[in-house]
Amino acid sequence: MQRGIYDADHEAFRRSVRAFLERTVLPDVQQHAADRQIPRSVWLEAGKHGFLGLAIPEVYGGSQAPDGRFIAVMAEELAKVNAALVSAWAIHSDITAPYFVQLGTEEQKQRWLPGIASGETWLAIGMTEASGGSDLAALRTTAVRENGKWLINGSKTFITNGYSADLVLTAVRTAPEKKARGITLFAIPAEAEGFSRGRKLDKVGQDEADTAELFFENVRLGDEHVIGEVDNGFIHMMQMLPRERLGSAISNVAHAKQILLETIEYTKQRKAFGAPVGSFQHNKFLLAELVTRIEVAEAFVDKCIEAHAAGQLSAVDAAKAKWFTSETQNQVLDRCVQLHGGYGFMNEYRVARAWRDARVTPIWAGSNEIMKELIGRDLGL
Amino acid sequence: MQRGIYDADHEAFRRSVRAFLERTVLPDVQQHAADRQIPRSVWLEAGKHGFLGLAIPEVYGGSQAPDGRFIAVMAEELAKVNAALVSAWAIHSDITAPYFVQLGTEEQKQRWLPGIASGETWLAIGMTEASGGSDLAALRTTAVRENGKWLINGSKTFITNGYSADLVLTAVRTAPEKKARGITLFAIPAEAEGFSRGRKLDKVGQDEADTAELFFENVRLGDEHVIGEVDNGFIHMMQMLPRERLGSAISNVAHAKQILLETIEYTKQRKAFGAPVGSFQHNKFLLAELVTRIEVAEAFVDKCIEAHAAGQLSAVDAAKAKWFTSETQNQVLDRCVQLHGGYGFMNEYRVARAWRDARVTPIWAGSNEIMKELIGRDLGL
Amino acid sequence: MQRGIYDADHEAFRRSVRAFLERTVLPDVQQHAADRQIPRSVWLEAGKHGFLGLAIPEVYGGSQAPDGRFIAVMAEELAKVNAALVSAWAIHSDITAPYFVQLGTEEQKQRWLPGIASGETWLAIGMTEASGGSDLAALRTTAVRENGKWLINGSKTFITNGYSADLVLTAVRTAPEKKARGITLFAIPAEAEGFSRGRKLDKVGQDEADTAELFFENVRLGDEHVIGEVDNGFIHMMQMLPRERLGSAISNVAHAKQILLETIEYTKQRKAFGAPVGSFQHNKFLLAELVTRIEVAEAFVDKCIEAHAAGQLSAVDAAKAKWFTSETQNQVLDRCVQLHGGYGFMNEYRVARAWRDARVTPIWAGSNEIMKELIGRDLGL
Amino acid sequence: MQRGIYDADHEAFRRSVRAFLERTVLPDVQQHAADRQIPRSVWLEAGKHGFLGLAIPEVYGGSQAPDGRFIAVMAEELAKVNAALVSAWAIHSDITAPYFVQLGTEEQKQRWLPGIASGETWLAIGMTEASGGSDLAALRTTAVRENGKWLINGSKTFITNGYSADLVLTAVRTAPEKKARGITLFAIPAEAEGFSRGRKLDKVGQDEADTAELFFENVRLGDEHVIGEVDNGFIHMMQMLPRERLGSAISNVAHAKQILLETIEYTKQRKAFGAPVGSFQHNKFLLAELVTRIEVAEAFVDKCIEAHAAGQLSAVDAAKAKWFTSETQNQVLDRCVQLHGGYGFMNEYRVARAWRDARVTPIWAGSNEIMKELIGRDLGL
Repeated sequence: MQRGIYDADHEAFRRSVRAFLERTVLPDVQQHAADRQIPRSVWLEAGKHGFLGLAIPEVYGGSQAPDGRFIAVMAEELAKVNAALVSAWAIHSDITAPYFVQLGTEEQKQRWLPGIASGETWLAIGMTEASGGSDLAALRTTAVRENGKWLINGSKTFITNGYSADLVLTAVRTAPEKKARGITLFAIPAEAEGFSRGRKLDKVGQDEADTAELFFENVRLGDEHVIGEVDNGFIHMMQMLPRERLGSAISNVAHAKQILLETIEYTKQRKAFGAPVGSFQHNKFLLAELVTRIEVAEAFVDKCIEAHAAGQLSAVDAAKAKWFTSETQNQVLDRCVQLHGGYGFMNEYRVARAWRDARVTPIWAGSNEIMKELIGRDLGL
Repeated sequence: MQRGIYDADHEAFRRSVRAFLERTVLPDVQQHAADRQIPRSVWLEAGKHGFLGLAIPEVYGGSQAPDGRFIAVMAEELAKVNAALVSAWAIHSDITAPYFVQLGTEEQKQRWLPGIASGETWLAIGMTEASGGSDLAALRTTAVRENGKWLINGSKTFITNGYSADLVLTAVRTAPEKKARGITLFAIPAEAEGFSRGRKLDKVGQDEADTAELFFENVRLGDEHVIGEVDNGFIHMMQMLPRERLGSAISNVAHAKQILLETIEYTKQRKAFGAPVGSFQHNKFLLAELVTRIEVAEAFVDKCIEAHAAGQLSAVDAAKAKWFTSETQNQVLDRCVQLHGGYGFMNEYRVARAWRDARVTPIWAGSNEIMKELIGRDLGL
Repeated sequence: MQRGIYDADHEAFRRSVRAFLERTVLPDVQQHAADRQIPRSVWLEAGKHGFLGLAIPEVYGGSQAPDGRFIAVMAEELAKVNAALVSAWAIHSDITAPYFVQLGTEEQKQRWLPGIASGETWLAIGMTEASGGSDLAALRTTAVRENGKWLINGSKTFITNGYSADLVLTAVRTAPEKKARGITLFAIPAEAEGFSRGRKLDKVGQDEADTAELFFENVRLGDEHVIGEVDNGFIHMMQMLPRERLGSAISNVAHAKQILLETIEYTKQRKAFGAPVGSFQHNKFLLAELVTRIEVAEAFVDKCIEAHAAGQLSAVDAAKAKWFTSETQNQVLDRCVQLHGGYGFMNEYRVARAWRDARVTPIWAGSNEIMKELIGRDLGL
Repeated sequence: MQRGIYDADHEAFRRSVRAFLERTVLPDVQQHAADRQIPRSVWLEAGKHGFLGLAIPEVYGGSQAPDGRFIAVMAEELAKVNAALVSAWAIHSDITAPYFVQLGTEEQKQRWLPGIASGETWLAIGMTEASGGSDLAALRTTAVRENGKWLINGSKTFITNGYSADLVLTAVRTAPEKKARGITLFAIPAEAEGFSRGRKLDKVGQDEADTAELFFENVRLGDEHVIGEVDNGFIHMMQMLPRERLGSAISNVAHAKQILLETIEYTKQRKAFGAPVGSFQHNKFLLAELVTRIEVAEAFVDKCIEAHAAGQLSAVDAAKAKWFTSETQNQVLDRCVQLHGGYGFMNEYRVARAWRDARVTPIWAGSNEIMKELIGRDLGL
């Protein structure tokens, strides 16, 4: 099915992203996995090409894209390389940077956005805590006023880019009694006194992404580190969620689609019992199903991309895209593993890594269960 | 998710279709089911409003729609009433009539199209035979030349509109040795000598549709009854398949969506253990899933509608839409039945009938297995 | 997989049941469906052979089976004929009769059990009400004391055997304030003044079973119509549930297994594209899966049969058997329909009827959702 | 559901296995994963307790179990620790050792069985080759006669225990023209000249199991290394398959069941939105389903254990158990991961490792697709 949402400019941009990836990333993907880290040099090079500043106005050093579809193209091409690459990029460029653009003061924008666009200031976002999971209202990291400063204590976990980030946008409770309405966002620099990181977490997949726990022990920051309004962080986060979920959905589909296409080629080459394994009717029908499922999911995501580009994507439609694509991605990749036989269980095969990588997508960015709760509420149930 | 494929003209047309249905059809739907027949009076009235001639040029009495989306709107509104209504209409207006428009001679068009547009000449299409199922190459109904006429013998089964049709477009073997390439299409009038019908078939669902076996015993017809080229019927049918499958997909989604919306309302009203059954988390999550599944399927179908309107819908994309929507339709309706509890097993409830009606959609119009075979071939497997 | 739970006596009994069915039931199954009724003559003949009194001591005219496996054999053989046959029988013999045996006074046993065993007193059980579904605590049918009698008012719905029953064991609220603990069971004779029935309900399946609404309008009965203890009916019903659910599970598996075996034969005979449809790999793998699923479900049910025979079947294990087998039954039959192609949608095919019949099993006898609630509670959740 | 296949002796044995595991294995499981190896010291200790010789007669140093259920108990307890532990043990004790017992000459038994029972002679079995997957008839490793010896050349891959094995039972083609009927089994010592191993394979899961490629370059062996009859290896392997598949099924269920029980406990402890996550209805129903699925699978496996103990387990019933349990295991563990939220993606959580470990079970020991092919054939399709 022709997609039809991209024009010649988008496709030209896609080619430039691909050229960058082939030159700067693909030669070293095995090393990234072994290091459990995508090196800063990759991001600095990406910054030079404007790939980190697609959401940032040029006046602040960015390369603001004419419309959101360029960001979608970027996410797709990264996802086709591997899931951790797009995760790390998205946390920086597509999820965290926009907070600074949309909520930052002029002073904050001038201070931070140029480094964000160049890759010199690498971002993470700290929402999740060990005790709370998806329940933002239960945040235990606190900031209290003391001598005109904020004193921050607490910790965050499962923080993508956490080990390498220079600046962490952090959700902190500033009004204990107000539950969700008493949360404030702080931009916490890694060099702040009292900030520390745990080890890189040993994850099931997305080996290349550096995920870590972060600790805040009497971190003292001034008001210039508050992003947006005090006590209004929950609302700020809610407003960014459609974008985050859509980004997740785009990556989920592009990631699974790429591996599926590679699997189809594999089943044409690989023989068993004297014939290509893809020619066996069971496998042929299975692949027909998987291709359909991917294209159907893609059609829905494309509608969301168009709606988002028009400023009309609702939070609940983004939630639908998020859960459905993550389920589709995992189903498709599971079958792709099976079609590879024993090789599907070997990490040197892309399908094996992809399968592991994908397992987190129904869990993060608001678990699929949370998405269904939101959709159910939207139905008036 | 906003659909975005229809403009104000389409929506105005939708309102006129709805008004017609509310006036002419809705008061009698129970009677149609009991009679196992939608009466001709309904179709004659539909004809008066131009609803039967959307694919027929005005010069032949039709009301040719400016683009295919009007036909999609028509199918959706009929499907929302019940599945048999849209089936009967589609066989006449959307599947069979176009053969006459596109392949008919000037004489044939003048003879038959006005009656088709008015509803006085009611159509069926005879492909399937008892022995062959989806395998068109195995047709046993034959026509042989005799004294400048064609002598037709054989039978067809599972023919929607078969009991009421005035004219049956029939696939007949004219060259035994040429397999699929030796099939010719004949327009066989019901009054032809040697034509007879079996009883209305007792089906699992779609009670209102009159489905029958047809018998041809030495039916003698001249060349003016051949539609398209002799021996080229298989190709003619293949060319019409994307349209047929798309029509099926549109109906599948619209039908299930309507019942799902009614089910959501039901779960808000119906109480158990002191609360609306839709408020129980299991049901709430389930309904969230079903709504998502329907909207995702709809997004894909909408892309197909647009591609078809642009003359670019491929047979294989239509095949994807057909199997996926029929599976989605059946899954959604099965859960809607469950959400109704015991009432879901009672025929007086729309959900119960809808569930029965839908069971045929993965079987007909090329079974879902055939669709997967076609998609697999398209993948080069 | 050999089952291993039946010995030679059970198999001899199975042969006698089969002989009875072949002689008395099989010739007329089409008529039963058309009549929406299994005639009393069938049951009277069954009574003569002792098939109705397997749970009734000989002293009361019964033919009490040495162990529960004979009842399982009976259920299996009936289910193989059709689902309504086993439903009607089970409501009478396996579900309702035991209340009289276990809870009845000597006088009640002498009065009713001989007729129950002979088929002259045909039973139904009235639990479900229109407003309440599976929620027994919400019963609205009430009995109040008046002049040493009980005055019963209310109604029941979805009552299997309701149209033909002579005696209806009915759950009635006798203590409004005590919720579930204020329910009493009454044996209400059909000839009681104030008792009436609605029409036979028009159901999706199980055509042969006469299901009806029952109405009680000032039905006046003495204490001799109370079965078990006053206000203790809920406990009485709870204690019978394992047996009822196990019976349901046995029928579910036997019913689906029989149709699956017939379907396998069909796929060996039916040809498409020049080969038996069962030889296509997709269908072959599918049938392999279905056979496995049935045998796995059967293994669990057989363990339950053994546990029940030893008096050790827990309510929660019966709940597991009930939901799992009803889901398996419906999945298997859905695929059997698909394997029949268009014929699967024709009511004259056994598979079509079986598919319709099965749809109620996840709904009744405590819906599958209720089963999961019970199992979840048992897990301490 | 009580299992009922084990008596007091089996349970006493279970306790002794558990005591061994708690003492010798559990303290070091993290280290085993880090080393990608279970150390020989574990197996030597197991050998001292007779846990490696359950299939070996005492006269050869074994501790032959009175019936196969002791072996099932052993597999279950190992699987509860982790999947790699039971895999490594099963390849040695339950899959390979029996070839020597059943097919070995007296001389071979005396030479090898004592070391096998003690753990000093560690076993692997070499069937799979890189080119062939599950297709044993396509073996390319060959042995040719030369000067009264066999000259073996070729390679094997995916060999569990391959990195540590002292003796590899290897399927080798000895008659090229006879396809499956020209295969011979050789016991190839690791110290044989020309034998070498590749690196430990980097697998998706089962980290602790040392899996490797093996290479044979002009390995020269005498007839005393032939196990069973020349050219009859395929038949020998076929005869052992029911045992291997049953062993796989036992492990699959025990492994998933243990993690499920731990997950249930987790959902009672872990809170979100102020309540234990297991108390949310969606999760409660899900856990109810998973528990049922495990118990149903277990019931089928238990029947297979009993049939095997009686020498009556057919290859096709073992195939049913193998595919069904591996599917159930993977479905259950996938949901257990989801119930852990972000922690389910962290390797330090048992559920995360278990999920990775399980992915191979639908692939190995004859892929599930091969199982369905066998079952389909058995149905006469």
